[in-house]
Amino acid sequence: MEQIDINSDMGESFGTYKMGDDEALLKVVSSANVACGFHAGDPMVMDRTVRNALAEGVSVGAHPGFMDIQGFGRRQIQIDNFVELEKMVVYQIGALMAIARACGHKVTHVKFHGALAHMGFADKEIAQTLVRAVKSIDPEMLFLALPHTQTEAAAERAGLRVAREIFADRVYTDNGMLQSRTIEGAVIKDAELAASRVMQMLEEGALVCASGKRIPTRIDSVCVHGDTPGAVAMAMALREKIEAAGIKIVPMY
Amino acid sequence: MEQIDINSDMGESFGTYKMGDDEALLKVVSSANVACGFHAGDPMVMDRTVRNALAEGVSVGAHPGFMDIQGFGRRQIQIDNFVELEKMVVYQIGALMAIARACGHKVTHVKFHGALAHMGFADKEIAQTLVRAVKSIDPEMLFLALPHTQTEAAAERAGLRVAREIFADRVYTDNGMLQSRTIEGAVIKDAELAASRVMQMLEEGALVCASGKRIPTRIDSVCVHGDTPGAVAMAMALREKIEAAGIKIVPMY
Amino acid sequence: MEQIDINSDMGESFGTYKMGDDEALLKVVSSANVACGFHAGDPMVMDRTVRNALAEGVSVGAHPGFMDIQGFGRRQIQIDNFVELEKMVVYQIGALMAIARACGHKVTHVKFHGALAHMGFADKEIAQTLVRAVKSIDPEMLFLALPHTQTEAAAERAGLRVAREIFADRVYTDNGMLQSRTIEGAVIKDAELAASRVMQMLEEGALVCASGKRIPTRIDSVCVHGDTPGAVAMAMALREKIEAAGIKIVPMY
Amino acid sequence: MEQIDINSDMGESFGTYKMGDDEALLKVVSSANVACGFHAGDPMVMDRTVRNALAEGVSVGAHPGFMDIQGFGRRQIQIDNFVELEKMVVYQIGALMAIARACGHKVTHVKFHGALAHMGFADKEIAQTLVRAVKSIDPEMLFLALPHTQTEAAAERAGLRVAREIFADRVYTDNGMLQSRTIEGAVIKDAELAASRVMQMLEEGALVCASGKRIPTRIDSVCVHGDTPGAVAMAMALREKIEAAGIKIVPMY
Repeated sequence: MEQIDINSDMGESFGTYKMGDDEALLKVVSSANVACGFHAGDPMVMDRTVRNALAEGVSVGAHPGFMDIQGFGRRQIQIDNFVELEKMVVYQIGALMAIARACGHKVTHVKFHGALAHMGFADKEIAQTLVRAVKSIDPEMLFLALPHTQTEAAAERAGLRVAREIFADRVYTDNGMLQSRTIEGAVIKDAELAASRVMQMLEEGALVCASGKRIPTRIDSVCVHGDTPGAVAMAMALREKIEAAGIKIVPMY
Repeated sequence: MEQIDINSDMGESFGTYKMGDDEALLKVVSSANVACGFHAGDPMVMDRTVRNALAEGVSVGAHPGFMDIQGFGRRQIQIDNFVELEKMVVYQIGALMAIARACGHKVTHVKFHGALAHMGFADKEIAQTLVRAVKSIDPEMLFLALPHTQTEAAAERAGLRVAREIFADRVYTDNGMLQSRTIEGAVIKDAELAASRVMQMLEEGALVCASGKRIPTRIDSVCVHGDTPGAVAMAMALREKIEAAGIKIVPMY
Repeated sequence: MEQIDINSDMGESFGTYKMGDDEALLKVVSSANVACGFHAGDPMVMDRTVRNALAEGVSVGAHPGFMDIQGFGRRQIQIDNFVELEKMVVYQIGALMAIARACGHKVTHVKFHGALAHMGFADKEIAQTLVRAVKSIDPEMLFLALPHTQTEAAAERAGLRVAREIFADRVYTDNGMLQSRTIEGAVIKDAELAASRVMQMLEEGALVCASGKRIPTRIDSVCVHGDTPGAVAMAMALREKIEAAGIKIVPMY
Repeated sequence: MEQIDINSDMGESFGTYKMGDDEALLKVVSSANVACGFHAGDPMVMDRTVRNALAEGVSVGAHPGFMDIQGFGRRQIQIDNFVELEKMVVYQIGALMAIARACGHKVTHVKFHGALAHMGFADKEIAQTLVRAVKSIDPEMLFLALPHTQTEAAAERAGLRVAREIFADRVYTDNGMLQSRTIEGAVIKDAELAASRVMQMLEEGALVCASGKRIPTRIDSVCVHGDTPGAVAMAMALREKIEAAGIKIVPMY
């Protein structure tokens, strides 16, 4: 492995409300998943995030979610109309594309957020709808997926360019899924432990599950979070460890 | 005059709530101003409206407004940050552009809605902000403006392509503005009267004010409304009268 | 049976958007379930609805739902926090109580709306949360429930006064539930058929299921709808039939 | 002066977003103005705030504002319908009253927030509408007003019980208004300076304006803020100074 991307969710502030330390994170990551105003963010936050990303040489992706700021996009909402779902995604990506174009940047990837992402992981028809939305806007868009999910499979079937990510601070179950945040220990808080785990996965080319089980996968990006205390320090520890191993950190392409 | 455009606001339904008879109107007009989900409309309504417009050969424009569905974008909201205003407009236009692209259509013009439009008519700094937003996304976008407003002037100064519209069913004050809807008689409900007034303005190349005063202007489009009883009949009467005068009804370009 | 209540959902307009013919319905029903601004309605619509109900001698109930105007409260939203659910219900009922008090009326019953109601029908913990919310505000509040549901059971266990309703225009499955609207024929559109079915249920003191199966139940109220074409005519046909049978139509108490 | 109230705005968190250090502030103040979910807060935040206030012996007031979470209620929104304004206020107060009742507390005062408050300060008809809303729900409600405003005058004319407040950290103009936050120096950040200014106003029974001008007024409460760094420390410094002067800090009544 010669190079890897580090991605992080950003632009999750909303009006007067602040979330995460985007400025610090933008110095660590190579790709930013920018909230599109449905589960977090607003037009001004989106603009500021994209401008800052551009200034730091960080690539920008759309991070669409359910329209639910109060629930931060983490509550599943029943999908009773797939056209509605599809167009809700198109709407969000398009809004960010215009924000990016207006400041001279470009949306080059997409990654789904929270409950919407989880529903796509598990449900083939939802996954296909998400993929259809992306492809209808830009068939060259890079699709950032969790390995071994319905979303990854649907994106591949549709002929999209697919990038796979691993999570630095989340524990994997034996089927390669993220353990629910509601379960004790599902989120790794020790920076060194998280960084070591990531290095192990990069070296083995596999997800390392909580049980010790390995699930082989291509890995294009490592996801770090910025909305919890210590998150930025964890991301920096990870970056150092990756660079110390002689791997370059560059945006996905 | 050999040709003219007829434009109408559309896509103003929201979820289960219906507004206007878009299907009928689309057979009358040549351009549709599509609400972008802030003051009316939602991603599914936008998609349906754009698809139907495409099927009828009707061109599509973005119709951005304040984020205020309850007030239908008709309440002025204090602007304390021009960047926020600018990006709020960019966001809406971008969302519609993606919806349009996804179904093979294209957003070729922009027209502002309600209170936001009125604030731009009168305030130079707001007008410039609206124009800057449009230009930052697409400098070729056609800017549909009310003659003799700050918005028209700002769009011209910015080098945008500007189209001028007259209103079929609204009374003009002596400074060329629309009389407030709250004033008795501000909205013309008689279809024949409205159509005759439009023909007069087209023939004279001028706004015909309530007082009889004429204000010369280029006229590229006639705006008809669809959200009131009788509106579609009025639009059809107008279309017939225009065509009877040997003028072709075609989209602005 | 000497008397029965007829209830209907009302106050579902929102801002400029109109829904249902409340004025006509208020002359037919004896109880109004008033939307509380989360899935439909707004403070002004609530006020108008309560005033009109007062003028017609119609009793008023709160009709809380999910915060989802775009989906009209018909989409299930994942409940990951029962305190949040409980307080969301308290909030809505309290808002309507103040609106009612301010115009000299009183909220005397509660009936849950759409997806929230359906989740309560089937899930014991959700049902208990809904009941806990109601009891915490007013232990004398009449709880309008669908017979043989978790909600009814929870309300009884909590010692609330429970009223049972049947639906005039909806088909019952063999477990006493409403057939999903997405299934052909789930909604009865023939006024005479609906009225006859209601009379049969009142006479037999039982739900009459699509299969012919009977499920005995006390019946305190008949629900009619007002948001579809022909709904008011159906409600009037029902009222006539009930009165012709010598049964008085009066609010639940 | 034997006793005084200290009030602060609270419950301004929203979903995942945190605002202010309410727990610390509740140990300093005697009255809490609780956001009602329109400009900030949500049902769960409201419940938590009221419970904590109850535990600390802090009285609770409603803090209604415009429905504008993104703008934190600080943007003026055009009022084109006074009934709508009135009912929007009734709705919010009622929601908080139910939340309070459900946990054994009581809403004993009201104080308007942000742009809505400012519009009431200056406009007689708006002020009267706000007062009418409060009186229609509870004529015994304590009305917390800024001295020498239209709101204070309207509340007095209506026969409401009126309490007057001064601001610890805001500069007064010569007409007794708060200097706009957008003007440099309008917000006092030095805790000692703020506390001394408050003591001076309490001793003189007058607003002390930036120019040195005095405007006599009864003072029932001192407002402190909690949403800025150092705010809690400032509030504690103030409390100490007041108590050192032998004045008891107790809720308004």
